[in-house]
Amino acid sequence: MARRHGLTSARLVTLTSDVGAAYAAQMKGRLLSSLPPGRVVDLVHDLPAHGVGEAAFVLRAMATTFPAGTVHVVVVDPGVGGRRAPIVIDCLDDSRLVGPDNGVLYPLAETLGLRAAYRISPRTLGDRPRVGTTFDGRDVFAPAAVLLATGTAPRRLGPRVAPRRYSVPRPEKRLDGARGEVVHVDRFGNLITNVPTDWLSPTADRIGLSCGRARGRSLRVVRSYEAAGVGRLGVLGSSFGSIELFVSGGRADRRLGARVGSTVRLRWYDGRRTG
Amino acid sequence: MARRHGLTSARLVTLTSDVGAAYAAQMKGRLLSSLPPGRVVDLVHDLPAHGVGEAAFVLRAMATTFPAGTVHVVVVDPGVGGRRAPIVIDCLDDSRLVGPDNGVLYPLAETLGLRAAYRISPRTLGDRPRVGTTFDGRDVFAPAAVLLATGTAPRRLGPRVAPRRYSVPRPEKRLDGARGEVVHVDRFGNLITNVPTDWLSPTADRIGLSCGRARGRSLRVVRSYEAAGVGRLGVLGSSFGSIELFVSGGRADRRLGARVGSTVRLRWYDGRRTG
Amino acid sequence: MARRHGLTSARLVTLTSDVGAAYAAQMKGRLLSSLPPGRVVDLVHDLPAHGVGEAAFVLRAMATTFPAGTVHVVVVDPGVGGRRAPIVIDCLDDSRLVGPDNGVLYPLAETLGLRAAYRISPRTLGDRPRVGTTFDGRDVFAPAAVLLATGTAPRRLGPRVAPRRYSVPRPEKRLDGARGEVVHVDRFGNLITNVPTDWLSPTADRIGLSCGRARGRSLRVVRSYEAAGVGRLGVLGSSFGSIELFVSGGRADRRLGARVGSTVRLRWYDGRRTG
Repeated sequence: MARRHGLTSARLVTLTSDVGAAYAAQMKGRLLSSLPPGRVVDLVHDLPAHGVGEAAFVLRAMATTFPAGTVHVVVVDPGVGGRRAPIVIDCLDDSRLVGPDNGVLYPLAETLGLRAAYRISPRTLGDRPRVGTTFDGRDVFAPAAVLLATGTAPRRLGPRVAPRRYSVPRPEKRLDGARGEVVHVDRFGNLITNVPTDWLSPTADRIGLSCGRARGRSLRVVRSYEAAGVGRLGVLGSSFGSIELFVSGGRADRRLGARVGSTVRLRWYDGRRTG
Repeated sequence: MARRHGLTSARLVTLTSDVGAAYAAQMKGRLLSSLPPGRVVDLVHDLPAHGVGEAAFVLRAMATTFPAGTVHVVVVDPGVGGRRAPIVIDCLDDSRLVGPDNGVLYPLAETLGLRAAYRISPRTLGDRPRVGTTFDGRDVFAPAAVLLATGTAPRRLGPRVAPRRYSVPRPEKRLDGARGEVVHVDRFGNLITNVPTDWLSPTADRIGLSCGRARGRSLRVVRSYEAAGVGRLGVLGSSFGSIELFVSGGRADRRLGARVGSTVRLRWYDGRRTG
Repeated sequence: MARRHGLTSARLVTLTSDVGAAYAAQMKGRLLSSLPPGRVVDLVHDLPAHGVGEAAFVLRAMATTFPAGTVHVVVVDPGVGGRRAPIVIDCLDDSRLVGPDNGVLYPLAETLGLRAAYRISPRTLGDRPRVGTTFDGRDVFAPAAVLLATGTAPRRLGPRVAPRRYSVPRPEKRLDGARGEVVHVDRFGNLITNVPTDWLSPTADRIGLSCGRARGRSLRVVRSYEAAGVGRLGVLGSSFGSIELFVSGGRADRRLGARVGSTVRLRWYDGRRTG
């Protein structure tokens, strides 16, 4: 994407947060004061409060569906006002990620390709007076995003830094299965694990599961929620590319007493060794 | 609306779902990768999970306020990955409805005028690899909506089919009243019934109600919530064109122990025979 | 902003409500039927039901980040259908505020500068038939906003009126502290008070607090949530310009048993007398 294009070609700016719609609206006002209509897109504002790891996972899934060159702003920032820096990450596909340096941007940056990161210096953002110290989303990230969306190079925003690394937890492959964990609970109470679906043999039709209250349960591997039968626990390949536990027409999180971070043990059945 | 117009005249695309904002964001990314800014409009993403009937009712009320020619995408889809087909319905006003063939689109199609329906063939959508089988919203409906919004005729997306019929439950007119049901509970706990407001005489000022815990209650018909008196159960003509039960400053769903599907019996008072 | 500009320069229209996304979608449909893409911006639709005072406070914080000339539509309207009028307030910065005359618009109008207010006459909005009496957001405010966004002068919408006054509760300055109240509880359970941060001396590092279950607690004044220590009650200058009570990583509303309207007594410590 060319730099220094006119306003009509300003980049898309997405907003992801745990702050709720009312705070997010203050960010939108700042952005729309300087960007042409339609450039600001809400992704989600009701992420679990302060859940940096889950937010990093969800952000990566959402943002990678957007076009190259998009500016993604993230406000999941329990350390706001403290020692963590506000940063921008310049990605190899020309996308820019703006948010706190607490790891929430890192998995997405790894996926898009991390070119360089910069600590945002307040003096590069103009001299609007700040109100309080607890809303960098409005006072730092939004004005930085305006500059990035209208052609300013990331390196103009401050000194280069090494961003804090964070990776979505890695599962372990075992001889007869895998050990992973729940990395996201969706609106339906489905449990999204970090175990790649392709670790499972394409021909496998059963799996052994231990997670929360489920101990050594044998489950059919299916391709739709309804195939498990109403009210039954089931397993399938999620839309995130990893294995998902669900209750058809119900909530797996409550059935199993599981949540983000819960350990998941999977056992492939005999004769179905996998890749 | 002309076919094959340039990008700047792409149609509006609306999104309605029960999947939550995070999954919806993945649909928006796919859409905004191919459509000009401002064309994608969120309607609601927190509809009751798997509530196909209520979603159909709410969708119809929302979508009919949009201009002719809009592309409405709906993801209330408990059967995703299973036997139900992904379809597009071509309407007489040139609107296109995209979603699962589970009936959720049907009441809206009836209202706008159903011209024809087509089963969406994956091969018409290009060859992006799918991830999982449980998110047709992102993997099928969004790419179909991009084509429809940029001028592709619905019949290009797949073979013609007869869509699954579903109608919002019909009330029964009785000699001295009506029998219907609750078809929607709104954010305030108001109970929206399927009994048309115009079945009630314009001069009627009282009604007899049986619904949930209310048995044979005589209620004033009013024109505002406050007119019933704070904390009082009341009845008025809703903004959906049907009769609504409410508690002024409170929640009628909790007061009556009623929900979507609850039976509602209304009795017109003597001398106020209607339509 | 010039009047009578073409559609491409239509004003931004923001939507703020307590009605939920489904009703709001009906307003968006009406607006987008007449405005170019990208002009309609959701602020928040899940404000506490019927909370006029808190909505007025949150609206002012959100709307003042938007550019001059924006049309702000507000539907926090427990009296809809009753005696309160639908109004438009013309502000000195050329912004227009549309909503019920119940005070919810007034604090924002005071901040932007109130030029004049007009009662919206239905006959100025065209003759679309109304459905019900309970959704002025869709049937009155949205069509009024379309006119205002496309160049109609506010005085064209109806006769001039004196709007109902409402002010965010004013705190009292005391010799050794202040007495105020909670005016907003945010998504994290933080308690936003009406006591201006600048009443506190810049050098003050402790404060005495009585609010809800906290009686005469001595708290450190900090600049970040983490500085208080996980699980600890703390106080800082909020992003609204007023003093905020929080629990680091927790919820202050639950800890203190406090809510909007709860009294807050603050005592400055010796030697830290303030402005």
